[in-house]
Amino acid sequence: MNIVEKCLIESISEAHDLNVHDYVPIIKDPPTAAEFFSNYVSKNSPFILKGGICHWTALSKWSPAYFRETMSEKMVTVAVTPNGYADAVNGDRFVMPEEMEMKFCDFLDSIEEGEDESDVFYIQKQNSNMTSDFPEIIGDIESHINWATDAFGAKPEAVNFWMGQKDAITSMHKDHYENLYAVISGEKTFTLHPPCDRPFIPHKNYKPAKYQKVGETWTIKDLLDSQPVPWIAIDPLNPDLETYPMYKNCKTLTASVKAGDLLYLPAMWFHHVTQTNGTIAVNFWYDMDFDWKYSFYQTLDNLSKSVLGT
Amino acid sequence: MNIVEKCLIESISEAHDLNVHDYVPIIKDPPTAAEFFSNYVSKNSPFILKGGICHWTALSKWSPAYFRETMSEKMVTVAVTPNGYADAVNGDRFVMPEEMEMKFCDFLDSIEEGEDESDVFYIQKQNSNMTSDFPEIIGDIESHINWATDAFGAKPEAVNFWMGQKDAITSMHKDHYENLYAVISGEKTFTLHPPCDRPFIPHKNYKPAKYQKVGETWTIKDLLDSQPVPWIAIDPLNPDLETYPMYKNCKTLTASVKAGDLLYLPAMWFHHVTQTNGTIAVNFWYDMDFDWKYSFYQTLDNLSKSVLGT
Repeated sequence: MNIVEKCLIESISEAHDLNVHDYVPIIKDPPTAAEFFSNYVSKNSPFILKGGICHWTALSKWSPAYFRETMSEKMVTVAVTPNGYADAVNGDRFVMPEEMEMKFCDFLDSIEEGEDESDVFYIQKQNSNMTSDFPEIIGDIESHINWATDAFGAKPEAVNFWMGQKDAITSMHKDHYENLYAVISGEKTFTLHPPCDRPFIPHKNYKPAKYQKVGETWTIKDLLDSQPVPWIAIDPLNPDLETYPMYKNCKTLTASVKAGDLLYLPAMWFHHVTQTNGTIAVNFWYDMDFDWKYSFYQTLDNLSKSVLGT
Repeated sequence: MNIVEKCLIESISEAHDLNVHDYVPIIKDPPTAAEFFSNYVSKNSPFILKGGICHWTALSKWSPAYFRETMSEKMVTVAVTPNGYADAVNGDRFVMPEEMEMKFCDFLDSIEEGEDESDVFYIQKQNSNMTSDFPEIIGDIESHINWATDAFGAKPEAVNFWMGQKDAITSMHKDHYENLYAVISGEKTFTLHPPCDRPFIPHKNYKPAKYQKVGETWTIKDLLDSQPVPWIAIDPLNPDLETYPMYKNCKTLTASVKAGDLLYLPAMWFHHVTQTNGTIAVNFWYDMDFDWKYSFYQTLDNLSKSVLGT
């Protein structure tokens, strides 16, 4: 084994021992802003606040029936794929979903058909669509998480609405945002690796492409004018350890976030997400601090690219 | 240049841009515990609190005359060297001072003789000697820094008393403590590098030895039963850049701490210290958190030793 690999395996194993829990702790009372900052943000450490959003009226109100009442004819943007993998690797391509504009009631039909529906529909537009696209229901949630806003010193940069089918899967990636993720109906399962595991997580460049449905037939259309997309080459639920043996050095945590729960997913954590059918969620992206934790991540990222070639 | 070196130079240069000021900021009002934690401790960022200990009675009382009045006959442990370098590299050796037990009045004589005294005397015992050895004057200072104690969640692990001559120099090193350093009389000059500069700071193993004065003659006695001492091979005031060209990538900050001022020196910062004659100081060592900043440092330390050989 290469001396740099060996050194990083040892250093990151020590970092796991010092700074990564074996599981995502579940807390019952919301932290104060100061506790949240010093015990979680500053430590880049996730937690689930059990029942953290049970006081939102959305929790009792939001359902397909309520959405049919309030927004039946409303046009929404839906990511549609033949297999549930929007923004994910397929062979040597990074394939984006077909984005369809449809009536909310038609989207709800697809959810309610469940597994009888062969295409997979997911409202997953990450452009603060909760704030911009859903004035009818925005009053049913809090516009921000107050202790998080106090700790970060600013309101969220984006609030996103998510609703989709069972087979809609978010492939492993990371975000440069602090994330507070609230599940309102259903359940989401997050498979997580801490940012320090970067050297063990293989990245490759993929040809950008897009799913496209013509009549009843799905095709993949290459986006010839776009740059290659760097993406994670491994599926954490079915990892190819023969090709990527370093991946076994990752620390893996799993977080099951149920209706009423709030997950704090710290910035830069790698995450892969599955869900039960019809899951409804709202997440808050707060700006992250490009501090020493980020510099550590960047150093590992640079070493991974330049030295390990991963 | 080696690819790992090149990658670390780029990554650390980016870390400097994001996380290291060009100078040590001077603030006038003490921070709250929360401000101290989030703006400085969490960012591993030093500052000087101008006049931060002006309310201590020590500031007006402590002087050679006052110490003669209160502690003239008291026995103290003094580090004595022929050149001012206690715990420092000399050729291929790491040389420790001769520790002499003497009356405080004799120590004060050496201070007041100033440059006429050829040996260099320094009270620098870092075993919480302020608390354990100086009950006569402990009431003249505060026993801890209240906003720091609140931020760290515990009283200091050690409180040290320092008094010595102009030529007493502390060679570059780092401590695994958070440090609050108060100057009561005179002035100390700290030459600083952030912890991320570890790959640029050459370390070597040295033969342990000790200064010993027999009659009027100084000798260096090897400590044959002791393990080699790893120490920093470069003098920041006169760096040998031909032998150690990577050192020029360091970010260097200088902090002049005058009587009445309090320096926050974050854990793991490399520091070299000089002083004016007769400088009196007290420092508080608080336990550090072995958090992501520490894991970053350890990763760089491991890479420096195993891959760069430095």
